[in-house]
Amino acid sequence: MSVAEVHSIVELIRAKRDKRELSENQIKAFISKLVCTNEEDRVHDSQIGAFLMAAFLNGFTFLETSYLTQAMTYSGFTFSWPQEWRGRVVDKHSTGGVGDKVSLILAPALAACGLKVPMVSGRSLDFTGGTLDKLESIPGFSVSFSPDKMRKIVEDAGCCIVGQTEDLVPADKLLYRIRDTTATVEHEDLISASVISKKAAESLDALVLDIKAGSGAFMKDIESARHLALNMVKIGNTFGMKVTGVITRMDTPLGNAVGNALEVAEAIDALQNKGPPDLHEIVLTLGGVLIQSTGYAESLDEGKKQIEESIASGSALKIFHRMIIGQGTSPTVAQELCYGDKWKCLPRAQSIRNITAESSGYLENIDAMAVAKVCHALGCGRTQPGMSVKFEPGVVLRKKPGDLVAQGDILMELHNQEISNGVLVNLIKSLQDACLIVQNPPEPKPLIIETLV
Amino acid sequence: MSVAEVHSIVELIRAKRDKRELSENQIKAFISKLVCTNEEDRVHDSQIGAFLMAAFLNGFTFLETSYLTQAMTYSGFTFSWPQEWRGRVVDKHSTGGVGDKVSLILAPALAACGLKVPMVSGRSLDFTGGTLDKLESIPGFSVSFSPDKMRKIVEDAGCCIVGQTEDLVPADKLLYRIRDTTATVEHEDLISASVISKKAAESLDALVLDIKAGSGAFMKDIESARHLALNMVKIGNTFGMKVTGVITRMDTPLGNAVGNALEVAEAIDALQNKGPPDLHEIVLTLGGVLIQSTGYAESLDEGKKQIEESIASGSALKIFHRMIIGQGTSPTVAQELCYGDKWKCLPRAQSIRNITAESSGYLENIDAMAVAKVCHALGCGRTQPGMSVKFEPGVVLRKKPGDLVAQGDILMELHNQEISNGVLVNLIKSLQDACLIVQNPPEPKPLIIETLV
Repeated sequence: MSVAEVHSIVELIRAKRDKRELSENQIKAFISKLVCTNEEDRVHDSQIGAFLMAAFLNGFTFLETSYLTQAMTYSGFTFSWPQEWRGRVVDKHSTGGVGDKVSLILAPALAACGLKVPMVSGRSLDFTGGTLDKLESIPGFSVSFSPDKMRKIVEDAGCCIVGQTEDLVPADKLLYRIRDTTATVEHEDLISASVISKKAAESLDALVLDIKAGSGAFMKDIESARHLALNMVKIGNTFGMKVTGVITRMDTPLGNAVGNALEVAEAIDALQNKGPPDLHEIVLTLGGVLIQSTGYAESLDEGKKQIEESIASGSALKIFHRMIIGQGTSPTVAQELCYGDKWKCLPRAQSIRNITAESSGYLENIDAMAVAKVCHALGCGRTQPGMSVKFEPGVVLRKKPGDLVAQGDILMELHNQEISNGVLVNLIKSLQDACLIVQNPPEPKPLIIETLV
Repeated sequence: MSVAEVHSIVELIRAKRDKRELSENQIKAFISKLVCTNEEDRVHDSQIGAFLMAAFLNGFTFLETSYLTQAMTYSGFTFSWPQEWRGRVVDKHSTGGVGDKVSLILAPALAACGLKVPMVSGRSLDFTGGTLDKLESIPGFSVSFSPDKMRKIVEDAGCCIVGQTEDLVPADKLLYRIRDTTATVEHEDLISASVISKKAAESLDALVLDIKAGSGAFMKDIESARHLALNMVKIGNTFGMKVTGVITRMDTPLGNAVGNALEVAEAIDALQNKGPPDLHEIVLTLGGVLIQSTGYAESLDEGKKQIEESIASGSALKIFHRMIIGQGTSPTVAQELCYGDKWKCLPRAQSIRNITAESSGYLENIDAMAVAKVCHALGCGRTQPGMSVKFEPGVVLRKKPGDLVAQGDILMELHNQEISNGVLVNLIKSLQDACLIVQNPPEPKPLIIETLV
C-alpha cells in the first residue's frame, strides 16, 4: 500500500475505535484492499485484527453492516441462474446445533416441491457439526464442484449440497480465518455480514434462517437469538432476498442421532417418512416458510403440507437419490442407501455401549452441549479447519425429553471406534450426567419458538 | 504455534476483550511468543493487532501494565554497568515537543556533575523531532554502537546519546511497528510500558520524565499529562528506578530554533551559557531532579545549582566535545563546533525568509504545532520510519511570547532548502497565522507546571 493508503486504513480503524460511523467508500476500500491479490497492496493482517476487535467492541450501525455485507458479497464470484428459475431459488442457513441434519432432508423436499436449491453448506468446527462432513460419509459423495457443474446438478436433481468455492465471497474467508484466532467470532454484526454475504452471493430469491437458541446453540437465550435473527433479516432484505428467521429450541439434540454417518442414516429415515417427530417438525416449518416466501403456497400451513406430501410420497427421497448420484455416488450405492439396507453402505462403529438410567422418573432434558462434546471427543468434529473427521462414531438417543424412564433403561448408545477404555469411561459418565431425570412430568417446550420476517 | 498455544493466545485476547485481568503468566507467554525468532511459533500479526485494540479500548490494570512492562524489558538484552557507577546511572525521557533539544545539553551537564548518562534516544516521526536526527547533522557523528562500545564512550566521556540497538527491548519494536498502523499508539498504558521498558533495560538508577502538555505536545491538557506521568512513575518504580515526572508547558516551541542543525547550534549556544532562558530553565530543572534523585544533592535547588555551574564553568561543553569525538566526529570538527565557528561545520540553509508582524502589540503565543508542521513540510522530519531527513531547514524565532512587537518587526526566520515558491508562500502564511498578537500584555505562564514523584 502507498503511504496514503496506509493512512486511510489507519483512519478507518481509528474511526471504528472512536465509534464514528464508517462511510460506504471507506468500507468498500477496506474490503477491496483485503482481497487484492497483490500482497504488497493488501491491508496488513495486524490491521485486520485491530479493525475486527474495534468492530467487535464498538459494533456497527445498520448502515455499516449493510455496506460491509454488500462489499463482502461482491468481493468475488456471484451466481446467476437460468431465467426460468426466477423466483424459485432458495436456501437455508442454520446457526448450528447438535444433531442438525435438517439440510439433508429439506433440500430434496424443497426441490420435490418445484423449488431450486443450490445449497452451499459448511463443515464441522469445534462442537458444531457440518453438513458436508455428514454427507461425505456416503461413499463417492463429493462436495467440490465448479459453479457450472453445480448448476448442472441443480438442473438435473433440483438441488445440491456443496462446499463454498474459493472465489465465492473471498472476503468472508479471509475475515473468518482471522476472526477465528482473534476472539472476534461471536459478534452479531460480523456474523450477520458473514452469513448474508454468502447467501447473497448465491443470488437467492428466498432464504430461511434457522436460529437456534439454547444450551446446545451459539445463542444461549431467546432474546439474543431474536436480535441476531432480526439483524440478518434486515440485512438480507437489502439484497432483495425474502429472508425469514425461525427461532428454534436447541437444548437437547435434534432427532436421535448425533455423528456423521449416524445422521445420514437418520436423514434417510426421515426421507422415508419414518424420522423422529422433532426433526420432521423443523423440516416442515423451514420448508413451509420457503414455499410461502416464494409464493408457491398462500400460507405457511399450505407450504408445510406440500413438504409433508413430498416426503410421504417418496418424491423427496427420489430427489435425494438423484442428487447423491449427481454428486458422485455410484447408482448402486445410492440405490442401496435409499431403497435397500443403508448400513451396507455407511461406515459403522465397531462397538456400541449403552448408557442407562441411574434412577426412575421423567427425562427432563439431555444436554445438547454435553452430547456434542462427547461426539467431538470421539472424533466426529475437528478443532482446526482442514483436519479429518471420523464418520462412524456418535451418540444415538433412545429416549427423548418427556419420556418416562425406569432405572436401568437404555437412554443412549455410544458408538465408538478405537478409543481407550479410560477415555470411554469418562465419556459414558459425561453422557450419564447430561441426562436430567425428574419426578414430575416436565412441561413440554415448543420446538419452534418464533418466526420473524 | 501448537493448537494449544493458539488457543491460549485467543484466550488472552478474549480476556482483554471481556475486561478480565490478565495473569503475569499470560502476559509473559504473549511477549515471549511475540519475540520468538521461529516464525512458526510467533504469535500472528492479526492477533497482535486485535490484542492491542482490545487493550486500547479496555485498558490495563496497574498490575497488567507492570507485568507487560517487565515482560517487554526482559524480552532482549539489558545493560549492566560497572560496579563503581552504582547509584549514578541516569537518563531522561521526553514525550516529545517542538524545538526540544534538551538532551544535547542535559546529558553532558549531568556527566559533568559526576553522573553516568548512557542515553538511548529516538528519531523524528511525524511532527515530533528526534534527538538522533539532530545530532546526525554534526559531521561524522554516529548513533549506532554495540553495548560494549557504548559503555566505553560513557566510561570516557561520562555520557553518550545513541540509538536503540536491535536487541534492546525487541518486544517494544515489534509492538510499536504494529501500533503505528493500527491506530493504537496514543494509549497511556501502552505508552507507559513502551517508555519504561526501554529505560528499565538501560538499568538506570534514576530517570526523569519530561511530560509535555499543550498544543505542541502529544498530551493537550495538563490533566492527561499528569495521569500519564503518574502512571509511568508508578510503573518505573516497580523496577527500583527512582522515577520523577516533570510536566512542562509546550504551547510554543522550546528555545528559539526548530530544525535539526539549527537546534544543534542552539544547544551549543546553551552549553556556552548563552542559550535562551526557557531552554536553560528546563535543563536546570530536569538535571536538578536527577542530581537530587541520586542523592548527589540534598534539594532540587542544590541540584539545579550544580547543573548551572557545570554549564557556566564550561565543563558541560567540554564533556559534549569529548562525547561527539567518542561518537565519531573528528577532533578538528569538534573543536570548531564547540570553540570556534560552529556554522563552519553545520549544514546551513541556502535561503532565509523573514516572517514579520502584521500588527503591533504583544506576542501572546507562537503555536508550536503550526511551527512543527512547517518544519515537517520543509523536510526536517519523516512520515515513515527509515526515510531520510534534511538537516538544514527550519524555523528560528526572533520573538517569544510576552515580547512587545511593532508592525513589520521580524518575528521568525524560515530557513529553507530547495522548495518551490508556491509552497514557500503557504508556509510563510502558516507561520504568520501561528503568531497571536494581542493588545494587552499576556499573563506569563510557568514553563515548569508540576513535579511528580
